[in-house]
Amino acid sequence: MSVSERRVGLWLVGAYGGVGGTTALGLAALARGLHTPVGLVTALPEFAHVDFDAPTRFVVGGHDIRQSSFAAAVRELHAASNVIDGSTLQVCKEQLDEWTANVLPGVLFRPNGAITALADRGHAVRAETPVDAIELVQQELKAFAAAHQLDQVVVVNAASTEPPFDPTDDHRTLAGLQAALKRNTVSLPTSSLYAYAAIEAGFAYVNLTPSRGASLPALEELAKLRGVPIAGQDLKTGETLLKSVLAPMFARRNLRVLSWVGHNILGNRDGQVLADPANKASKVRTKDALLAEVLGYKPQSLVSIEYVESLGDWKTAWDHVHFEGFLGTKMTLQLTWQGCDSILAAPLVIDLARLALLAQRRGDAGTLHAAACFFKSPAGVPDHDLGKQFAMLEEYLADPGPRS
Amino acid sequence: MSVSERRVGLWLVGAYGGVGGTTALGLAALARGLHTPVGLVTALPEFAHVDFDAPTRFVVGGHDIRQSSFAAAVRELHAASNVIDGSTLQVCKEQLDEWTANVLPGVLFRPNGAITALADRGHAVRAETPVDAIELVQQELKAFAAAHQLDQVVVVNAASTEPPFDPTDDHRTLAGLQAALKRNTVSLPTSSLYAYAAIEAGFAYVNLTPSRGASLPALEELAKLRGVPIAGQDLKTGETLLKSVLAPMFARRNLRVLSWVGHNILGNRDGQVLADPANKASKVRTKDALLAEVLGYKPQSLVSIEYVESLGDWKTAWDHVHFEGFLGTKMTLQLTWQGCDSILAAPLVIDLARLALLAQRRGDAGTLHAAACFFKSPAGVPDHDLGKQFAMLEEYLADPGPRS
Amino acid sequence: MSVSERRVGLWLVGAYGGVGGTTALGLAALARGLHTPVGLVTALPEFAHVDFDAPTRFVVGGHDIRQSSFAAAVRELHAASNVIDGSTLQVCKEQLDEWTANVLPGVLFRPNGAITALADRGHAVRAETPVDAIELVQQELKAFAAAHQLDQVVVVNAASTEPPFDPTDDHRTLAGLQAALKRNTVSLPTSSLYAYAAIEAGFAYVNLTPSRGASLPALEELAKLRGVPIAGQDLKTGETLLKSVLAPMFARRNLRVLSWVGHNILGNRDGQVLADPANKASKVRTKDALLAEVLGYKPQSLVSIEYVESLGDWKTAWDHVHFEGFLGTKMTLQLTWQGCDSILAAPLVIDLARLALLAQRRGDAGTLHAAACFFKSPAGVPDHDLGKQFAMLEEYLADPGPRS
Amino acid sequence: MSVSERRVGLWLVGAYGGVGGTTALGLAALARGLHTPVGLVTALPEFAHVDFDAPTRFVVGGHDIRQSSFAAAVRELHAASNVIDGSTLQVCKEQLDEWTANVLPGVLFRPNGAITALADRGHAVRAETPVDAIELVQQELKAFAAAHQLDQVVVVNAASTEPPFDPTDDHRTLAGLQAALKRNTVSLPTSSLYAYAAIEAGFAYVNLTPSRGASLPALEELAKLRGVPIAGQDLKTGETLLKSVLAPMFARRNLRVLSWVGHNILGNRDGQVLADPANKASKVRTKDALLAEVLGYKPQSLVSIEYVESLGDWKTAWDHVHFEGFLGTKMTLQLTWQGCDSILAAPLVIDLARLALLAQRRGDAGTLHAAACFFKSPAGVPDHDLGKQFAMLEEYLADPGPRS
Repeated sequence: MSVSERRVGLWLVGAYGGVGGTTALGLAALARGLHTPVGLVTALPEFAHVDFDAPTRFVVGGHDIRQSSFAAAVRELHAASNVIDGSTLQVCKEQLDEWTANVLPGVLFRPNGAITALADRGHAVRAETPVDAIELVQQELKAFAAAHQLDQVVVVNAASTEPPFDPTDDHRTLAGLQAALKRNTVSLPTSSLYAYAAIEAGFAYVNLTPSRGASLPALEELAKLRGVPIAGQDLKTGETLLKSVLAPMFARRNLRVLSWVGHNILGNRDGQVLADPANKASKVRTKDALLAEVLGYKPQSLVSIEYVESLGDWKTAWDHVHFEGFLGTKMTLQLTWQGCDSILAAPLVIDLARLALLAQRRGDAGTLHAAACFFKSPAGVPDHDLGKQFAMLEEYLADPGPRS
Repeated sequence: MSVSERRVGLWLVGAYGGVGGTTALGLAALARGLHTPVGLVTALPEFAHVDFDAPTRFVVGGHDIRQSSFAAAVRELHAASNVIDGSTLQVCKEQLDEWTANVLPGVLFRPNGAITALADRGHAVRAETPVDAIELVQQELKAFAAAHQLDQVVVVNAASTEPPFDPTDDHRTLAGLQAALKRNTVSLPTSSLYAYAAIEAGFAYVNLTPSRGASLPALEELAKLRGVPIAGQDLKTGETLLKSVLAPMFARRNLRVLSWVGHNILGNRDGQVLADPANKASKVRTKDALLAEVLGYKPQSLVSIEYVESLGDWKTAWDHVHFEGFLGTKMTLQLTWQGCDSILAAPLVIDLARLALLAQRRGDAGTLHAAACFFKSPAGVPDHDLGKQFAMLEEYLADPGPRS
Repeated sequence: MSVSERRVGLWLVGAYGGVGGTTALGLAALARGLHTPVGLVTALPEFAHVDFDAPTRFVVGGHDIRQSSFAAAVRELHAASNVIDGSTLQVCKEQLDEWTANVLPGVLFRPNGAITALADRGHAVRAETPVDAIELVQQELKAFAAAHQLDQVVVVNAASTEPPFDPTDDHRTLAGLQAALKRNTVSLPTSSLYAYAAIEAGFAYVNLTPSRGASLPALEELAKLRGVPIAGQDLKTGETLLKSVLAPMFARRNLRVLSWVGHNILGNRDGQVLADPANKASKVRTKDALLAEVLGYKPQSLVSIEYVESLGDWKTAWDHVHFEGFLGTKMTLQLTWQGCDSILAAPLVIDLARLALLAQRRGDAGTLHAAACFFKSPAGVPDHDLGKQFAMLEEYLADPGPRS
Repeated sequence: MSVSERRVGLWLVGAYGGVGGTTALGLAALARGLHTPVGLVTALPEFAHVDFDAPTRFVVGGHDIRQSSFAAAVRELHAASNVIDGSTLQVCKEQLDEWTANVLPGVLFRPNGAITALADRGHAVRAETPVDAIELVQQELKAFAAAHQLDQVVVVNAASTEPPFDPTDDHRTLAGLQAALKRNTVSLPTSSLYAYAAIEAGFAYVNLTPSRGASLPALEELAKLRGVPIAGQDLKTGETLLKSVLAPMFARRNLRVLSWVGHNILGNRDGQVLADPANKASKVRTKDALLAEVLGYKPQSLVSIEYVESLGDWKTAWDHVHFEGFLGTKMTLQLTWQGCDSILAAPLVIDLARLALLAQRRGDAGTLHAAACFFKSPAGVPDHDLGKQFAMLEEYLADPGPRS
């Protein structure tokens, strides 16, 4: 089969959120040349030689517990947040509707309150055991690949953030996890059930959220076994992106950060789900880890996230950095970031999909370290300095072709 | 001679400004253990193995067209800007007065209006020709070295910013410049006269300002000939420091910067001198070059600098960055930086002095590329990304010892 | 004639700017109940009893030196600034086109460079003398009133800001001005020629800009003579509005304002015209007068206005207020205002039109002091405290009906 | 007795906090002419004719559960927050020590956890019943007045904020409260015990905090009976002060506030006490009431207060106001306030003491409505517009002399 005929699938778990809708619209718009690929890292001139999949090769599908459509998700975003012009939507409407036909309600297994509230009653399948859940999900993924004759599929977790999940001994090895699953004596968060299903089926897996996903030793083992690249976690789109360049600046000037306070306000569904303190905990945890690593000490830090309905998908982050300079002098840097979450995230979803698909073709299985620059908690990469992370990506992509 | 007995001289041109006063006080305070070296890059743990000169080894002298003292400069800073505690000054007063005895009025050669206004009448020597000026300055530098039995001297330009100076053919080669100087048919800005004097005498030269200084091909030739490291120019302490990490962030995310507006307000003597539009032009020029280099295109950019008396030595920089993300969406980042200029600059002066003295001992003559991370317009280094510049410094200092 | 049949005309000089276009669209949208009157002072519940003209009674016309249309002005605003939803425009399109038919090119008399650049060549009539200009304008205003059988007309100056104009002795009395006009020995800025034409024809006149307009003793005399209310000048929509409540706050707490710096960036045609230093001078003058009046002393103040194309009609104002509190302590307030100029101004245009028409019906001629709260330089009202100005409006409107 | 010999007492409950220390130092410094009365409302030129007590007439005393001194409180403030110059403290040191001799440990009655943590063990007297507590406090107040032969005393509550206290039927009438106290069947927060003691003794009472204090019908009855003015509550020094002028601005322009988020960070003892959620509740309650009253509807609002140690007594408040203008357009105002709490509050303490003492001399008993402009929750005054509140003060003080 010639490379030009390659067809790839992008499966969005949480398809009808702002990120899912924008990603689908973005792929359709790029495929039609309606917009330049501003915001796509993989479209940087320095990566022009890399064999990434063109937008025209993508088929989109996904899971969502709500009954909606890609077009409705985009219209909702437009109405609440005043982004995306009407003409782009109009031209892409038919494509979006075609992809909406690929979206299934998904499988619910012991969801928590905030998630249940979003689910349309009687719509999603409820699994009795984790093993059942994995199998049901996997059947749907495989059916998608078969129906569209896809050469590769990448599964992307864009669902709402789950509460923190602390792994046990059972999650340490694949054999241990499989045995415990068989006995039904182990719990896995929904995101990890989906990750298991994808990886075992041989599909690349990307986790955009702070949820657990594939970040379990047993699942990394499975990924290596199945030749599947996995990447995560928690997309770095705003405040943490800024921290990943500003904290190194303070470190390199030997300026002592005394306190770093971040206050985030946003009005989208993500904000509503984060209003549940259990779900918020995961988020604050990943937003806060960077400073100690980069600075080499732990300044006082606070991160708050509040739901402010009028903002829609716009997130305003206000950061107050108090630092000490020479001779005990205290000084201040303040930042105000006003960005639209879905608009910032969607191009990175396309980037990660392209990167994971490329990695799989190159025979790279397991954690994809080259993707560190995209994430707040880059799996397997201790360095949070964006410059160093980006250099890892450059090095990976400089490698001319498939390794195998 | 054993290394521990080494004595080095720091000659500050513009000794009684806030930066000069704070540098002198800082060296005295560090030598007495009154403060930790927060703000000194050369004091970072990763450079602990490098043979930098300890603060105790430094003798300070300098030139200033005003009649004042280091202690008065520091007291003035304290009164106007509420920095530096009284007890530090009290303990270091005697040392500062001893160093004040080393400060001379300097040589004036065709100064412009804003500079003349600062000069105490009848105090500074007026030279008739550039050659005379160079000779007079050099005699004073050599006398300082001899009087204090110094092993090395570094001359640092901390004087007020001059108007832009465009070099001619006469400044291209050392032979050409020397011939033209002999004929008295060439002009050199004051900063370059001082640089010439220092370099020819074999003293390292550092330029903290956007003035021309040693940045002329003829002077670089002279530096290489005399085994003298030169570094410059225009210290990067606030807004441009931020740009040097934030512009790469936008570039790496393929976010298109539409406009970058910076508005600076400050109330120190530097602010007054910059109120003269001719002097301001140099500053705005060096503050503005970075974006096009880092981004690869030229967004609209504006930089303003205004004198606001009540701020004293505190500079507030407000930056408004308007950028385009995916699907044509416009977003905004705003920064507010509140820093004390002298406090930010002084530790870097000590860093650069230590670095230039080390380089000279290692036999490195000419432009010191490893110092790029300190400057807005790093001589000889096209890259404005702070991370990459800092990596150059790390690489230079990882080299275990003298090269020669 | 019954009140319900009253028909009134709104004549916009500078019809196709963002303010003109939004005003026309706003009237059409309000008349059709497409939007609630958010942003209209005259729609506040406390003024519900006042006999203001309903939006349905308005007929719009105007002058513009450019060939365009109300619909094009609104579409341009939408494209550049992402305001006004497409459906509102669609529903009102026919009405806008009907009103566009009432717009004439106007009369040019010695325009300055920035204005000439905007004019479509060969379109506007060029008058030879001020008297000719006045007469030509007046004929067009009267024709508009006659064609639409209007009971009243209000002329609103929404044209670009002119350079400052300093009146001479000839502008002090109506008799003097008329004699000088007859001799053709006096100059009048374009805004004042239009004001003369309107007032002499018996039409109310409102000046939204810092241009001279009707602010000449001779024209006030004419207004009283002709029973015409006049109001101005320079609409207070953003930074100055904030100053008019914050400066009184500092005054009432006896906190000493040391410096007040305002930096404005905007990207609309107004911004381009203000990039001409002569035109900018008028603007900065009116923005800066308030502080001394409210505070009782003159703190250092700076106001800058810069054209930043990417912002479109959005103006970002950053204000830095440095103030002294008890025991010599310096503190800071910073403001960032992000508003869309046309959207902020248009409802106030409707307010002022309604207010001027009401005043004329009540027999109030000359400067309308009750309108002070709308303006940066309220004619005839020394008080800049918004609270006190608003109380004047409340008092005026509490008066139950026509005075005469 | 001639007016010029009048001596008045200022009794600070919570004497050794930043506010108490600054107030004492401020009175001493003003009495010695070391500073101008910047920050004192009662020192405004327009009130120059009012018979306020000069700083020289004041004797200071107070209660504090910690063992410290006024000088130590001021030195602590200087060290942590870089305010108050050393020379002012030096000149006033003797006076402060004299006043420190008047400070007693006070009486503890069922304190909550955060308060107990501050109390030096074994220092304060513990009362068994509310009646005992009132009597003990009152004896100390009377002893202060007698020892210094004071003509009047004003008691000011500057203690840490208590949790909210909801009054019962027993607090409705003085007779009911006294009966319940006698039976020991009623509870009163500490602030109200002190208020009772002061009022019954005939001393004016001012409450700087959101604690209950004299805000109980029974205590207002007592105040009227004893001829005692009472004022409160919760000093308005920063964010709420801004709201009290900005909310009316939005209201007067018919701009619809969609959400108002305020995020406060501060590092003083007040911040630590507010870290106890029970205490914080009182504060957030009083900060949040204003908007609905001024706007006439309730926008979404959030107020957070966080302890950030490095800030010392400096409070940074960041406010994000999202509002809707004409045609559904959303716009934003952001504020950053950087003020030193004690420095902002202390002059208002002197103002309120002078005002309450004047009111008592004029025979005005019960709630002092004229003091509304000083408070977040002005007792008995529904209007939160600073301009209108200030007009009440002006009217009160325009009244030439004693009413009785």
